[in-house]
Amino acid sequence: MTSPETATSLVEIRLMLADLPGPDLAARTQAVTREASLTKPPGALGRLEILAEWMATWQGRHPPRLRRPRVAVFAGNHGVAARGVSAYPAEVTQQMVKNFIAGGAAVNQLCRSVDADLRVYELSLETPTIDFTTAPAMSDEECARAMAYGMMAVEPGIDVIALGEMGIANTTSGAALCLALFGGSAAEWTGPGTGVVGDQLARKRDIVAAGVARHGAEAAGDGLELLRRLGGFELAAIAGAVIAARLARVPVLLDGFTATAAAAALTRLDSRLLDHCEVAHLSAEPAHARLCRALGKRPLLDLDMRLGEASGAALAIAILRAAVECHTGMASFASAGVSGRAAPV
Amino acid sequence: MTSPETATSLVEIRLMLADLPGPDLAARTQAVTREASLTKPPGALGRLEILAEWMATWQGRHPPRLRRPRVAVFAGNHGVAARGVSAYPAEVTQQMVKNFIAGGAAVNQLCRSVDADLRVYELSLETPTIDFTTAPAMSDEECARAMAYGMMAVEPGIDVIALGEMGIANTTSGAALCLALFGGSAAEWTGPGTGVVGDQLARKRDIVAAGVARHGAEAAGDGLELLRRLGGFELAAIAGAVIAARLARVPVLLDGFTATAAAAALTRLDSRLLDHCEVAHLSAEPAHARLCRALGKRPLLDLDMRLGEASGAALAIAILRAAVECHTGMASFASAGVSGRAAPV
Repeated sequence: MTSPETATSLVEIRLMLADLPGPDLAARTQAVTREASLTKPPGALGRLEILAEWMATWQGRHPPRLRRPRVAVFAGNHGVAARGVSAYPAEVTQQMVKNFIAGGAAVNQLCRSVDADLRVYELSLETPTIDFTTAPAMSDEECARAMAYGMMAVEPGIDVIALGEMGIANTTSGAALCLALFGGSAAEWTGPGTGVVGDQLARKRDIVAAGVARHGAEAAGDGLELLRRLGGFELAAIAGAVIAARLARVPVLLDGFTATAAAAALTRLDSRLLDHCEVAHLSAEPAHARLCRALGKRPLLDLDMRLGEASGAALAIAILRAAVECHTGMASFASAGVSGRAAPV
Repeated sequence: MTSPETATSLVEIRLMLADLPGPDLAARTQAVTREASLTKPPGALGRLEILAEWMATWQGRHPPRLRRPRVAVFAGNHGVAARGVSAYPAEVTQQMVKNFIAGGAAVNQLCRSVDADLRVYELSLETPTIDFTTAPAMSDEECARAMAYGMMAVEPGIDVIALGEMGIANTTSGAALCLALFGGSAAEWTGPGTGVVGDQLARKRDIVAAGVARHGAEAAGDGLELLRRLGGFELAAIAGAVIAARLARVPVLLDGFTATAAAAALTRLDSRLLDHCEVAHLSAEPAHARLCRALGKRPLLDLDMRLGEASGAALAIAILRAAVECHTGMASFASAGVSGRAAPV
């Protein structure tokens, strides 16, 4: 297999996809069997039960484990930011990276709150991607290198990885990807992001439409090519991390709209490629609900968050940990001496 | 003020309601002001922002604090259980209490997972309430003592309290309370609980209707009287804890259907009496959604859980902690050197 660090073309990335691990059905069966023995009515823990089974299935291990969660935030800059599609200036990407490093951002507090390791990955912030309305956002080599960089976030020993992003203008990129992947209208996929409204939102929508008109036909049906043309460095890195996590049997929590859009590009390569991923939360960015429906994913949380920077994904680690703790720590009916279901009177 | 330990009649409980603290608007203003300065687009943390402000408002303190969360589970037995309204025999209440004490239940794992203190309160499990289709479930003194017992869970120094219950047949009691409080049909409020279906569910519904027919008119408009007639020891204890928490400025997380129904009875005494409470999660028990709508509450989590025993309320502590940590720990735009919103291009 190609080592991710050496990937300098998308051909090498494609080679990695040839032999992806599937679900571990033996681990899944063990999880389902144990779940049925625990001191609660069947199904009474709802999604926590499903999540524990999903963790076992995709870690390929029973019992599943959640001791070392990692939160990875990828930061990149976008040429299209110069078109005024964001409520904030492009230099905020770099400033927020400094804030992550200093510990002052929301994701820092959330990682501390859920006891997760936070890593921040800068992707050549001084060199934005090209404005995708004029040319592909990245060269083949740039996209491959960004994906390879993302892959490095999946280090040995981590039990789950939460993926998020920081990049002024990247909801524009995410919207363009979604429009190219799933069709519909630019208006359906374009939202306020950090808070654009009115004429600025109309311009953002037109830029999304222009990007897809420019690249959609040439890249149709090829997720990596769409990612290269309409995505960005941090989106490519997220897609790379999703692939590396699958290979390493590390379940993934996807943050909001932009992170989910980046991962969605991979479904064009293999419709089951996101089976080891859960969408952590439903973003208040309106198109996220549509995107989740298109992917058949039900987000774990719905708290009107729309910050990005892996904030929702970090928070969802608490849900995943609860699921694993209940599954592994609860007593069985037999061991606790609790009566089972009564015969109906 | 009457000391809760001495309350032996509902008259004494009613006296406590005469002078309930309202929202601390100064603390709220401080929270709103601080929130606006933090390094994120306004509103981008969604409900986490609202929760931080709510914590400050009802703790009467800025910054809000979440160092000592408590989870309180109240356990009681119901005379109506003898009518076969549950999928489990009545002795399971006592057996599950033993399981809580031994650390084998879901709520034990969840409390560990969110680092919360768990207390279990048994309410004369050997003596069930009276079957409410034949007479009031409790005497005035029994109801008052159960409420006073619940009040004792609100000890000095705790920052939030999560309230839940264990009691075979108590969704029957909860459904009867809801029907008496909010009207509609018994079918709309009666659900499977631990898993009753078919003829057994039809019988449960008829028992709910019979209870309300027996007591509804006599107790109409009086929440405490409804609680006494149709509730149970653990429901009364939850209502007591909600009152004590308001008096002590401790915000409350209500668990699923039965806990919310117990608290709902208090809204008949004062429509603002649950303003210091959030509903922790939307239970899969179908009537919980209807009950939350009736109370104007949007649950924090929606994970298809329907276990009771404060499981959803315990898990929601993780959300509340995240809210408080973001509010108190984040940098401001000024301190982090992050640019504010750009003028639209």
